[in-house]
This record gives sequence, structure tokens and C-alpha cells, in this order.
Amino acid sequence: MIYLDNAATTPLDPEVFEAMKPYMLHDFGNPSSTHSHGRKTRAALEAARQQIAALLGAEPGEIVFTSGGTEADNALLCGAIQVHSVQHVITSPLEHHAVSHTLEVLARQGWFKLHHVTLDEKGHINFDDLETLLKENPHAVVSLMHANNEIGNLLDMERVGDLCDYYQAWFHSDTVQTIGHLRHDLRRLKVDGITAGAHKFHGPKGAGFMFVRKKKRIEPFIHGGAQERNMRGGTENVYGVVGMAKALELAYRDMDAHARHIRALKSRMITQLREAIPGVTFHGDSEDLRRSLYTILNVCLPECDESGQLLFNLDQQGISASGGSACSSGAVGGSHVLKALYPSCKGASVRFSFSRFNTAEDVDQAVRALEQLCCVPA
Amino acid sequence: MIYLDNAATTPLDPEVFEAMKPYMLHDFGNPSSTHSHGRKTRAALEAARQQIAALLGAEPGEIVFTSGGTEADNALLCGAIQVHSVQHVITSPLEHHAVSHTLEVLARQGWFKLHHVTLDEKGHINFDDLETLLKENPHAVVSLMHANNEIGNLLDMERVGDLCDYYQAWFHSDTVQTIGHLRHDLRRLKVDGITAGAHKFHGPKGAGFMFVRKKKRIEPFIHGGAQERNMRGGTENVYGVVGMAKALELAYRDMDAHARHIRALKSRMITQLREAIPGVTFHGDSEDLRRSLYTILNVCLPECDESGQLLFNLDQQGISASGGSACSSGAVGGSHVLKALYPSCKGASVRFSFSRFNTAEDVDQAVRALEQLCCVPA
Repeated sequence: MIYLDNAATTPLDPEVFEAMKPYMLHDFGNPSSTHSHGRKTRAALEAARQQIAALLGAEPGEIVFTSGGTEADNALLCGAIQVHSVQHVITSPLEHHAVSHTLEVLARQGWFKLHHVTLDEKGHINFDDLETLLKENPHAVVSLMHANNEIGNLLDMERVGDLCDYYQAWFHSDTVQTIGHLRHDLRRLKVDGITAGAHKFHGPKGAGFMFVRKKKRIEPFIHGGAQERNMRGGTENVYGVVGMAKALELAYRDMDAHARHIRALKSRMITQLREAIPGVTFHGDSEDLRRSLYTILNVCLPECDESGQLLFNLDQQGISASGGSACSSGAVGGSHVLKALYPSCKGASVRFSFSRFNTAEDVDQAVRALEQLCCVPA
Repeated sequence: MIYLDNAATTPLDPEVFEAMKPYMLHDFGNPSSTHSHGRKTRAALEAARQQIAALLGAEPGEIVFTSGGTEADNALLCGAIQVHSVQHVITSPLEHHAVSHTLEVLARQGWFKLHHVTLDEKGHINFDDLETLLKENPHAVVSLMHANNEIGNLLDMERVGDLCDYYQAWFHSDTVQTIGHLRHDLRRLKVDGITAGAHKFHGPKGAGFMFVRKKKRIEPFIHGGAQERNMRGGTENVYGVVGMAKALELAYRDMDAHARHIRALKSRMITQLREAIPGVTFHGDSEDLRRSLYTILNVCLPECDESGQLLFNLDQQGISASGGSACSSGAVGGSHVLKALYPSCKGASVRFSFSRFNTAEDVDQAVRALEQLCCVPA
């Protein structure tokens, strides 16, 4: 069984499990309780918050725990537009549904007018267009993801941040794919809100966080108790948060080594696929190791009889990868990202995404499988 | 260390932990992935959904997983008012903040007018008043909790359900304190939405669910992927959900025995407190074993020098209980429930809440501690 779908979710690191265990077996108090049972988990929660904040260059009070990246994206967007009386939101056609669906619903409810920045042929945003939109619509909210979850394209967050700062826009970035894989220095970066889901970096499912810059406060999204400094009601998922902090600690401890290892796997796959499958291409900018996230490679295979069955057939061979099914004939629904970039593409597309637990052998086997399935004559 | 704060949170049952472990150590796939890793967790998720639905007399499609009770309450209320074009919401002054704060924010945003049903001196709702409100405001949303989390008062859900049905109101009930402690037959009960948080019945924190009646659909609250049949975006907390189903299974397996055991503890505490502390009373209807939840007892102690320090002093003696600090002199904030019912009360109030893991000895020690702290002469 070969797992090459780490952009969907990653295996929990055994060290993370060990860190969570005491809070599942013994220390169960509600962090909002003032008695000793509560104080113990409150201490663990605040230690996790401090650790995460320190790793990102944020203040502890700027980290708000959520149930994951999707809730965090919803909370930041809903919260920002309410408190800043925003009339315009600028985004891209390639955002994750956690962002695009949220914005579409809010726009339909009449909260603001939605603007989409244009893209180049690789799927990168057009900065001139972004600047025009910012100029025409001051005090907007801008929501642009750091790394695209399907094609891996990286955003120049610094450049967007500077532009947003200049035009006094509130800058949100869905950083779910990059937290734990790239370093973020929030002291320097002019971003007002970012998001994370622990299970994307070998932490637990059901835990995430958002960063909200202190001076750019937002309205709470989930109302309830006074948890998270009144920013998010609901009893905190203590072991989830503890596991998330541990996972981020591990990610940062060896980030350079992990990145080197994973980058080599991606590079190996690109080279081998080019040799094995004539006509193979790579979606977005995912073959550019500088302009795309090192964990993601989106492969576009030449059309053949089996194109529509490719993922199924890979799965049959024990290889787990993900579709971007806009290009598969007869696909229902499909990928809004690939549809936007390649409306007339006829080949099959597969997203491979790697983690530190993958090996060169995983890549070799996946390439051999693809070679067979793509009907390349021996 | 004696833990008598089970309405705040409960210890995870070791059997629940064992059920969760495989999904933390091995089976980590994203349930939305179509490959084998994903199908395995999808199967676990759907088995949990079926199990929970069966225990409650619901259909699997009526159970939507959330991060907990608070999110579920927010989601049901926001979702119901959007889809049913509701102009009036009827609630009580004693609801949990997950309900009351959510409704206040939505009312301020102009979604509807908020009406509060009047209460009797014990904190039970006035059914005549409810009927008048329903008559005057047809097609309302009604939100009334099943058991009050501070004083334990039980709502006659059947009677409210029949009234709501008659006046075509959408009936939501925060059932966070009763799921896993009382049986709910949703085939019979005319309720449209209820909520649960697993950690209130020895399940994991960070997992909960809402029941949404099939014919009374609502708008999604957290937007994102197509998870939960498009009803709740975000990767599902697989081990949380698996643990929650296991916890509910255990709760139902021995519910009668647990209830007998816990009811006896509550009864014992009432009797002993009456003997030990002259002037002791019980808030709400919590001393009535028929009209209040058997897990909750809210004690009102006669005023003394130490009233303000009572919880702190109990904690010093290793006893974890919860405040309802409206009655404590100098308390900041305090309990909206006790403030509403006992605006001029001067004594100290303590909420004791029991679980199947408590013993008669726990109760005896707590009573002895209270007796000392309340300055009763020997």
C-alpha cells in the first residue's frame, strides 16, 4: 500500500500520539473550569498556544484554536467582513472551497461584492490586476491561498501583503497546505489572518487554528462560552491541540531535512515520468520546484482508453493518489481548479502529494504503475 | 482528587480510547478520498453514523458530525433561520450561551425578532406563555434546552414538540446534557434539531453531532467540501467520531444501571446536605429527581464569611465542582441562569454533577467539606 495523497491528509506521527495520550487517559478536565482538573488542561492548552505562536512569530493571543482549517477559513472570512464593514472582497478562481463557497454564500446574502483576480496560464495571479482591484475597491478583504491544494502553485505572500497594506485591505490567506511545510514569519509578513489544519502536517484530525493579527480583530464565528478569549465558543479539543503543537514542533525541528527529502521525491517523479510517458505534462506550475510547493505534483497524462479509470486502477494496484477529474472524460463535478485552467484538456490528471514518510521506492512503483496504465507500448 | 463536575466534561472511557486507537495509529485516510485509505475511514465514519442514528431512532442521513455541541447549536440555529425565512425566534432566558449568544448576534443583525418565554419560580417554562407566543408568531424557530446545564431542570420536550408541530414552528433543542444520559426516540418526538457533544458522555472532546430532521433541512454553517452530504465542510475528525459512537453505545448499553447509580448519589447528597447544613436549599428544580436531570445538583448554601471563596476552598480540599457565581458576593460575570432566577440571593452556590465513575464516598467527602467550609458549629 503506497500513500501518495498527503495533501488530503497525513498519517499521525507516533510521537504526536504519545503526546496526546495523557490527555486522553488521565488529564481530562475542561480548560474553562477553575478547579485543579481544569487548570491542568488549561496549562497544556496555553503551552500549546505559546509554542505554536513562537514557531510562527506570532503572539499567543493571536492564535485561536478551531476544529480545523475549513472552520478557520470560514471564521476569518465571516469575522472580518462583519467587523470591518467590508463592501468588496477580492479572491481568485482557484481557492479551496472552504474559501470560495463561504465567499459565494456571503456575497449572495448581500454582505459584499465579490471580485476575482485574473490568472496567468500557469494559474498564478496577475499582480497588475490585483493592484487595479485594490485601487478601485479600497478597504477590501483579500483572500488568496498560499499554496494551491491541487496544483501546488505558491503565492508571493510578501508581495500581496505589501499591496494590501498599501491599499488598507484586510489580507486573509488559506495556508492550510503550507503550515508545517514552509516557515512563516508573521512578524514580518503583512497578513492579517491565516489558517491551519493539524492533519496536514502529521497532527490529529479535528484540530486547527487561525492566526488573527492583534490590531485587526474580527467577530467570533462560533458563539458560546468565553473560550479562546471570546473568539470561539465550545470546549477546546485539548488532546487535539496538544497533538497539533507537537506536530508543528516536529515539523519545524527537521523542516529542512524533510523538505530536501520530499523535494527529491518530487524531482525524481518528474524526471521518471518524463522518461516513461511521452506527452506527460504537469498542471499549474507544479513542475517548477521554486514556484510550487514541494509536496504536490499534479500530473496530466495523455488521453487513452483508460483515462477515466486511472485513479481506480491505481487504487487497484495499491497506490493512493487523488484526482483532479476535470480532465477525465465523463467526470461528474470534477476539479474547479483544473476546469478554470484547462477547460479543453482531455487527458487524465492525478495529484500526487508526498510526505516525509514516503520513499524513492514509492515513487518508482507509482511511475511503473502509471506507465502500464497509460498503455505505453513496451 | 474528587471530580464532581461532569456537566462540564467527563473522563474518556478507556473502552472509547481503545476504539479510537486504530484510527490514530493506522487507518488515517481522509474519508473523502476514494482510494482504499479513504474508503476504510469512510466505512468507519458511516458505521458510527448508523450506530448513533439507530440508538436515537433517527436515519443515518439525519446525523451530521460537528466539532461539538456548541458548533452544532450554532449550525442548527443559523441554518434554520436562513432556510425557513424565519422572522421570530422563541427561546428562554436560561439557555446555554451557545444558543443565547448565537441568537442575540443574529437578532442584532436583523434576521428575526427574539422572544423570551416566561418562567415559573423553579425555572420551568410557562406553557401558556409559550403557546401565546407561538400563536402570535407563526412559523417561528423555538429553541429550548432539554436539561439546563446549571440547575438540571428538564423540559417536557414532547409537549413543546406537539405545540411546535401544531403552530408549524421549527423546534430546536440543546440536548447536550441529556444525550447519553436519557433515551431520545426521534421517531416519536416532534423535534427538528438536537445537539450533542461527545465529551459530556465519556466520549472525546472535539466531536459532536447534530440531528436535523430530513424534511426540515437547513443551510450549512461551515462551508467547504462536500463532507456530511454538503451539510458541514471540513475533514471529519474520524477518531473523534468513532470514539463518540463507542461512547454512546456504552452509555446506552448500561444506561439504566448508570442512571440508578447516579440518581442514588444525587439523592444521597441531598439527604446528607439537608442533615449537615441547616438552611441549605437547591437551585431550580434540581432537588426534584423527576423534574431534573439525575446528573446535576445545584446547591445553595447559607451566606457566610467564606461564601466568595467556597469553590476555591473546595478545590484546595481536592474537590472539583463548578460555580454558579451569581450568588457569590463580589462575583464578576457570574451565572445568567442564577441571576435570572435568584436576583437577590446572597448565599454561595455550587453545581455538583455526577457520572458513573463517582462513588458514595465522593459524595460523603464533598458533604463533609461543605459542612466545614460553611462554618457550621460542630
